[in-house]
Formats: sequence, C-alpha cells, structure tokens
Amino acid sequence: MIWQNKLTKLLGIQYPIIQAPMLGVTTPEMVAAVSNSGGLGSLPVGGLSPEITRERIQKTKALTNKPFAVNLFVNALDNVNLEEALAIQDFLDKLGKKHNLEFDRKSPGSFTFYSYKEQIDILIEENIPVVSFTFGWLDNDCIKQLKNNGAILIGTATSVKEAKLLEDTGIDAITAQGVEAGGHRGTFINDEPLPQVGLMSLLPQIVDNVSIPVLAAGGINDGRTIKAAFILGASAVQIGTAFIPSNESLAIPSYKDRLLQAQDTDTQLTKAFSGRWARGIRNTFMTETEQSGLTIPEYTIQNSITGPIRAAAIKQDNNQLTNMWSGQSAPKIKLETCSDIFKELIKQTESIKSI
Amino acid sequence: MIWQNKLTKLLGIQYPIIQAPMLGVTTPEMVAAVSNSGGLGSLPVGGLSPEITRERIQKTKALTNKPFAVNLFVNALDNVNLEEALAIQDFLDKLGKKHNLEFDRKSPGSFTFYSYKEQIDILIEENIPVVSFTFGWLDNDCIKQLKNNGAILIGTATSVKEAKLLEDTGIDAITAQGVEAGGHRGTFINDEPLPQVGLMSLLPQIVDNVSIPVLAAGGINDGRTIKAAFILGASAVQIGTAFIPSNESLAIPSYKDRLLQAQDTDTQLTKAFSGRWARGIRNTFMTETEQSGLTIPEYTIQNSITGPIRAAAIKQDNNQLTNMWSGQSAPKIKLETCSDIFKELIKQTESIKSI
Repeated sequence: MIWQNKLTKLLGIQYPIIQAPMLGVTTPEMVAAVSNSGGLGSLPVGGLSPEITRERIQKTKALTNKPFAVNLFVNALDNVNLEEALAIQDFLDKLGKKHNLEFDRKSPGSFTFYSYKEQIDILIEENIPVVSFTFGWLDNDCIKQLKNNGAILIGTATSVKEAKLLEDTGIDAITAQGVEAGGHRGTFINDEPLPQVGLMSLLPQIVDNVSIPVLAAGGINDGRTIKAAFILGASAVQIGTAFIPSNESLAIPSYKDRLLQAQDTDTQLTKAFSGRWARGIRNTFMTETEQSGLTIPEYTIQNSITGPIRAAAIKQDNNQLTNMWSGQSAPKIKLETCSDIFKELIKQTESIKSI
Repeated sequence: MIWQNKLTKLLGIQYPIIQAPMLGVTTPEMVAAVSNSGGLGSLPVGGLSPEITRERIQKTKALTNKPFAVNLFVNALDNVNLEEALAIQDFLDKLGKKHNLEFDRKSPGSFTFYSYKEQIDILIEENIPVVSFTFGWLDNDCIKQLKNNGAILIGTATSVKEAKLLEDTGIDAITAQGVEAGGHRGTFINDEPLPQVGLMSLLPQIVDNVSIPVLAAGGINDGRTIKAAFILGASAVQIGTAFIPSNESLAIPSYKDRLLQAQDTDTQLTKAFSGRWARGIRNTFMTETEQSGLTIPEYTIQNSITGPIRAAAIKQDNNQLTNMWSGQSAPKIKLETCSDIFKELIKQTESIKSI
C-alpha cells in the first residue's frame, strides 16, 4: 500500500486517514492521538464561543505537535419561531417526565450558536494548519485570511453540484460524504429531496468532476473499506464511528455498548435532534419526536431546544433520549485507544492482497 | 486482476460480471451478448405468463449456448382494493389528458401477474443453469426441484438480516443490493423504514455474516467500482444501468438520452410506478403521483394500474410518463453494443494499478 500522495504532502501527514470531527464525542485527546499516530485528527468547534474554541485548540496543542484540523460549521443562522419552539419545548417536558428525566428548558433568548466568523481570528492567531468545514462554504474574506496564513482548507459535499461549487471558491480539498456517514449531512444546496448518494456512486463522480483531492467519508471502518475508497479515487479517508467506542471519546457507556452491537439497518436519518438531517441509531427520542407530528424548527434552533434534555440523558447514561450518531458501518475494531484503533486500520489495509 | 473464483466456477463463466435482470429493458439479445462475452446475462421473467416465459427463454437459447440466469419475482400476490384502484385510475386518466396521452384503463379483474410457482416447471424443462430471484425467498419445494435439476440459486438481500434468512434456505449465493441500485429494491423484511444501506456498508457486512458467495449490486459502472467491490469481498458484480443505453436494450430513445446525461442526485426512490420501492430518474409521473396525495396500492396492483399509461408513453417516446429506472451512477461507457460495453468494463478493471 502506497500511503503518500499529493494530499498527505499538503497536509504534512504520514497516513491519509482523518479522524472525523464529532462534536460532543471528540476530545483534544482523541485529536492528538490520531495526529500523533501519523493521521490527521479533527477538532470540532462548530457553534462554540470564541473562548471555548481557543481553549480546546490550546488543549490539543499541548498534546501534540503534529498537524491537526479544526472543523467549522459554516451555516447561516436562523431566527427563532417562538410558537414552534414553545410547542417542541412542551413536548420535550412531557417526554422527560414520562421517562423520569429532569431538566430545565432554556428561554429562546438564551439559545447560543456562534457564527464561524467569530472563530476565524482565533484560528489565525493559533496558526491552525488545516481548517475543514461543513454545512456550506466559507466566505471569500475568510478564505483569503486563512490562506494568507497558510491554512489548507477542506469543504464537505454530498453531491457533485456541491463539490463543484466548493472547488470554485478556491479551497484545497473536498470531503465526499456518502449516505452511509454518521452524524449530520453536510448538505447545503437543496435539502428537499436530501441528496442520499451512496459512497460507491458519489466518490468516483466527485473525483471525475473536480481537480482537487477528494476525501472519502461514510461506511469506512476497516482495511477493506479504506482500500476500496482509494481504488475509487480518494486521496484520503475520513473515519468517525470507528473511534466513538475509544477511551478518548466522550460517548456515554450505553452509547458505546449500543454502537458495538449495531447492525446495518439500525440507523436512520432524522431531523429530530437538531433540525438538520443527521444519521444516528434509532431510539426513543427519534421515534417519539417524529411521531409527535410537531413542526421541527430549523437548525440550529432545534439543536438548542433539545440541548437540556440531551444533557440530562447523558448525565444518566440514558442512550434513548440523546443522539447516538452512527454511520451504517458499526465499529469493527474492539480496541481501547484511538492509537491502537488507528494502528489496526493501517495494519488491516496493508495486509489486503492486491487482486 | 484475477477473475476466477469459487462462484465463476460454480456458474461456469469466465468473468464474474452479471448483467442485471431489467424487466422492460432486457432482451434475449442483451442476455446472450453478455453471456457470449464471458459474463452472465440475466433474463427477467417476473410475473410473466408461462407461455411468454418459455418463449423468451427459447429465444435466448437460440442466441447463446453459454450459461445465463433466469430471474424470478418471488413476492406474494395481493388482492385489489377496488376503491383505491379506482381513485388512482381516475387520477391517471386526468394525468394522461393533461399531457395528451391516450390509453384505456384496464378493469381490475384483468390485472395479471403470474406467480413464480407457475414458471418453475418451465425452468426445469428448459434446464436453466442459474435461477436468480428477488422480493423474497423461494419456497422449499421449488428449491428442491431446481437443485435436483442442477440449477444454481441466487437470492437478493438489502440487509444482513435478509441475507442470513436467504442463506438458511440453502441457496448458493446472495446479491447484496446497495441503496445505489436502480429499479426495484429487493427488500422483503420490514419495508418501513426501508433498508437504505449504501454498498460500502452493506457489502462487507453481508460478506462477514454469510458463508456463501456474495454478488455486489448498486453503483457499479466502471473499472474502479468493479475493483472496489472485489476489494470489499464480492465474488461477482451485477451491473444494470450501464447496459440500458445499448442497442440491445428496449429503453426508448428519450430514456437513453436522459440516462446518459444523468447526475448523482437525479434519481429517487418511489412507489409511484409499481407500489414497490424502486429507484428511477425523477420525472413528471413520479412527482405528480406523489403529490396527488392518493394512497398508492401495493405491488403488484399499482404496477398493473399504471401499465396502460406507461405503455402509451413508451409508444410516444415520452420519458416523463413512464419509469426511467436508474442507479445513482449513470452509464459512463458510451459504446453501442453490450459486447463492447462488457469488453470495456473488463479492460478498465484490468488497467487499474494495484495500490
């Protein structure tokens, strides 16, 4: 297996394996472990305050002197529709009571989600070498600022159209997110009908339609899937779900356990948790929210509204009332640390015979 | 590239490339062209009368002395709900008038769809070497009869659960149908929520959970995707959409043209044409039927109801009022004959460098 290519050189990494940014699961320890292993860790900071953003970056830097990516959410921000928000909050209060979960709702005035524009200065001051992003495109000024500072920029596409639009903004690489991927869909053009293209179809079509390197995301969890992605034209793979059961992950024990037993059809796409399509393991929250018939507010509003009940569920290790993001391929490697998982991925890939 | 494996030996073929059975598109000429090229052609006979079944088999046999598969639909048959059927027929009459398409509705009493059980004797009499099937499992008696006659049996699964159930019936191989695949989903356990697993996730999981050979279907249209499927553990690939534009195909010119221009997100899953989930290029029929708000009768009833308007559309080369089944990967090889398309697939696969 030849690991080095144009992209690994650009990123200054040994192996073209990227740990997916998973807000709520990824820790500075996870990011550092993957970067120290020769891959690229990704620190998710989407929507976080400038202060917390800086704190997490500095914590990661204290654990590695290798390059890592910082991942931004570049969506536009919506206003709250108070009536819709109130209806969902009433529903969640009842849902919590039914399942003995106590929490206080937040007033819509206190919903916070920081724009990525408030984070750019910090990324520049901290000399972040790789900036990845999802839910849209970076504006021209941010691209200029980051590029002048030497950052490599990686956007996320769920269709050929999105990939071409991102390439036109002058960024360096694109992550092709197949329908198999866990967590939020990166979709930013026409989410009705939502693009749901399998990686086997999406990856080669994006590769054929852009001239910058393409990263593959979705369904990659072992040596076979890594090698297949490279055959399809990927310059790197992005792996998320496989790292969730690790020691370095913030996932609660009942989420890790459930994930390790997951089967191919256990996940589905839902807007119930955040107002944005995301793939997770089917659970009570998802089912009951969808069956409520209520209008789910747009992202990021629904995300803020469901915050308190999810936080309460996490405290009680209750995997039925918070999100269990997962791709369609459950983790196959049952090792404890991100470093061991990473090493095993490399070993498996190298052991596949050429055909 | 090493083409030979346990499955090719079992099937008696040179290349593990199977032309997908596409009822309405596949001709005996297409089947024979692929079998004569060293692959395995598949003749679809789902729901056809015993007489037509025999006629098509004999026509295929006249064109090749190589093995080919005959493909059955093994679903249970539903009764007509007259009220629902009438409402859809009224809607289709209006839709036809709006688009200047003349046709006569059929009376529900004349809806015909033959059970596969009426076709088994013919398959045995004609010594069909490979019998593939979809929409369920073959009953024990049919399996015994076919096996006693030396036939190799191949079922279709859209989930690990379906694959294991099929393996338990004692068949020889399983086609793993990724969500990328065009035409009808083979799903037969729980179609709500419909399993929509991408091939990158589905294929290795099925391979790991059964001990018989697995064929890969969905998104395969060139050398890269063929090779990737083998890396993921496939013993053969099944290719449909790539053969639709060929001379040997029954597809109308406007369907072929549309397909050759198709992009990754142009298809969607719909029940509008047949009452069963199937992937095709989005068009007027699909959109207007779904927006009608009417209850779509179950397969095969809706299939019979929409028959006349689709037949009229086909006569007028109108691709907006009949089904344009397609996978998420449009045909990439723009050659005229199935034999040339097949050769090019082999050539592309062999030219991929090992990594």
